[in-house]
Amino acid sequence: MDFYEKTEKESIIYQGKIIKVKELDIKLPNGLMGKREIVEHPGAVAILTTTKDGKIVLIKQFRKACEEILWEIPAGKLEKGEAPLDCAKRELKEETGYTARNWALLGKFYTSPGFCNELIYIYLASNLIAGEAILDEDENLEQYLLDSSQIDNLIENGHIKDMKTITALLFFKQLQSKDKGD
Amino acid sequence: MDFYEKTEKESIIYQGKIIKVKELDIKLPNGLMGKREIVEHPGAVAILTTTKDGKIVLIKQFRKACEEILWEIPAGKLEKGEAPLDCAKRELKEETGYTARNWALLGKFYTSPGFCNELIYIYLASNLIAGEAILDEDENLEQYLLDSSQIDNLIENGHIKDMKTITALLFFKQLQSKDKGD
Repeated sequence: MDFYEKTEKESIIYQGKIIKVKELDIKLPNGLMGKREIVEHPGAVAILTTTKDGKIVLIKQFRKACEEILWEIPAGKLEKGEAPLDCAKRELKEETGYTARNWALLGKFYTSPGFCNELIYIYLASNLIAGEAILDEDENLEQYLLDSSQIDNLIENGHIKDMKTITALLFFKQLQSKDKGD
Repeated sequence: MDFYEKTEKESIIYQGKIIKVKELDIKLPNGLMGKREIVEHPGAVAILTTTKDGKIVLIKQFRKACEEILWEIPAGKLEKGEAPLDCAKRELKEETGYTARNWALLGKFYTSPGFCNELIYIYLASNLIAGEAILDEDENLEQYLLDSSQIDNLIENGHIKDMKTITALLFFKQLQSKDKGD
């Protein structure tokens, strides 16, 4: 099947510091015209950080877009030209103080492909060395080390409301159950 | 800890058909001022649809924001005032033709809380009745019924690039392994 939507006209609506907003006139495969509202985003990383005794680092922070405090794994946006793994190491250090000796990519996913090109790289970081966090002056967060029963509790009670975080936690549970040999 | 970021000024940048873009001046808990770029979205639903023999409905569609064809579970945006479950039933019927006798909410998640308030409700739909799809004229998709080894293959090879889809599939795998009594 021919799926391609050809851009016939592009209007830049907004160039912010983080996002860029465009309106596109597109030509559909059936010849009809359509409109698309698009948000461009630099991409991001998120880090499932696990200690030797199987605890996971979660942070609590206020998210203005949602007007609520969320439980999340450490995460941050890619800087211009930055490789995702470098970004993950930088963000983990800045937000939590941890550095990690072992890194593995769990996957990369579009957060909301219906209108936005944000691609998020989810890493597993282990073999940790604790250190001092270096927060931006507009970052305000609390750090927690939770064991797997506490994590299960948060998931079962619907307290994990951030999709990158639930994705990473479900991947981790799956890895753990594989390690146990089921 | 006091996390709240108070809105001091709000500028509406764009009111599209789907998204609304705002720039906010905020006051941080430490008294400093900051800026936030916010995208408002009506919210969405996604449906993990499973047949009696354990197959899952995936669709392939072109996503202009990402300029690529993605594997996704059926999904769609909430209409004004629409209850999420009604939306899920409507979208499943429209996109795939299926109606389902059993519905369960797997969870609701913010797709990208750093800048966007989109909340997506992920449902499990089972006990299906096949029927005719009713696609919008600008919707162009292919439907597949995949078994769990095909799904595992897609996940392991990084072919599932949509985060709501990987989330739903990982939830489903976890449910399946619970049913098996691990």
